[in-house]
Amino acid sequence: MNVIADFCVVPIGVGVSLSAYVAAAYQELEAAGLHPQLHANGTNVEGEYEQVFAAFKRCLERMHEMGAPRVSCTIKLGTRSDRSQTMDEKVVSVEEKLGPRS
Amino acid sequence: MNVIADFCVVPIGVGVSLSAYVAAAYQELEAAGLHPQLHANGTNVEGEYEQVFAAFKRCLERMHEMGAPRVSCTIKLGTRSDRSQTMDEKVVSVEEKLGPRS
Amino acid sequence: MNVIADFCVVPIGVGVSLSAYVAAAYQELEAAGLHPQLHANGTNVEGEYEQVFAAFKRCLERMHEMGAPRVSCTIKLGTRSDRSQTMDEKVVSVEEKLGPRS
Amino acid sequence: MNVIADFCVVPIGVGVSLSAYVAAAYQELEAAGLHPQLHANGTNVEGEYEQVFAAFKRCLERMHEMGAPRVSCTIKLGTRSDRSQTMDEKVVSVEEKLGPRS
Repeated sequence: MNVIADFCVVPIGVGVSLSAYVAAAYQELEAAGLHPQLHANGTNVEGEYEQVFAAFKRCLERMHEMGAPRVSCTIKLGTRSDRSQTMDEKVVSVEEKLGPRS
Repeated sequence: MNVIADFCVVPIGVGVSLSAYVAAAYQELEAAGLHPQLHANGTNVEGEYEQVFAAFKRCLERMHEMGAPRVSCTIKLGTRSDRSQTMDEKVVSVEEKLGPRS
Repeated sequence: MNVIADFCVVPIGVGVSLSAYVAAAYQELEAAGLHPQLHANGTNVEGEYEQVFAAFKRCLERMHEMGAPRVSCTIKLGTRSDRSQTMDEKVVSVEEKLGPRS
Repeated sequence: MNVIADFCVVPIGVGVSLSAYVAAAYQELEAAGLHPQLHANGTNVEGEYEQVFAAFKRCLERMHEMGAPRVSCTIKLGTRSDRSQTMDEKVVSVEEKLGPRS
């Protein structure tokens, strides 16, 4: 089962600057072959369910290894059985509806 | 790694009534031994990461088996390395701060 | 427009214990007349859109007033134009599908 | 209070193709001056709290006007009182931690 997912991790108890943690999670997602796409409120990935959630676990473990005693995490995901669709195809599908942009 | 998670599933392309799907997901979570707690915007569970996410996968597969061509899903989760905490302890911890309720 | 929503607030930069913050947010939601229902991963409310989101803003302001330099927040919400539905009706609708529970 | 938010809307009861709805929501967010950034799992915006949530309400109303009897919506948002930060600055802050990319 293929999934497209958004992963957002918030380490708690490590102060106010979180970018080093988000970067470390990104590196784990990249090392797992999930083609991560960083955006302003999370990181998008695509892959097989087991592969994706094994990588998310590794990200959470990494947060704790980096010193976070507590981690809050939000995941949005979509699956389809009617057809396959990539992250880029999802975006293009909306952009086509928006029409030519100046 | 123990997790406390909120699981919310929205099958797409099966009409407007979703309660039979939410009930089926609940049954999968219960069968997996995750002590599901149904609430107005999702279902809370607790357990080991692998156990929880294997059950979530089974829920998604069940949605497709029931006829949903597409599924949207939102997961919130928390992990702690400083101490163990159950779902009930999380709620009690806030209720203690709220003080006696009329 | 009536909404049923789940509100989850994570103050950042205030240490690892968040229950006093969640309790303060609950009090704001209650003061706003939103009938908050605390659960293990958030707080559910129902009400008119403007009333709900004015209360959520007050919660965020309260987190900052309590000392949080940064706040992360997750909101899930549902609206219907086909019929009205309360939080309790949503839960009962699923419980009916589950059948008699031991 | 300035917010950076991710808005994800799932119209229910309108079939399996949602891109026309996501495009319509994007247009509402753009018309509201929120500089929307479309990504594979939602649309990011930034602005004043009232401005952002008035636009989200308009998006939800638009979904119902387009025929959706029910709408599910997920919002992630962040606020800071320690300093101002744009969406682009959030991404750059992580990219700097990642170092030079091939």
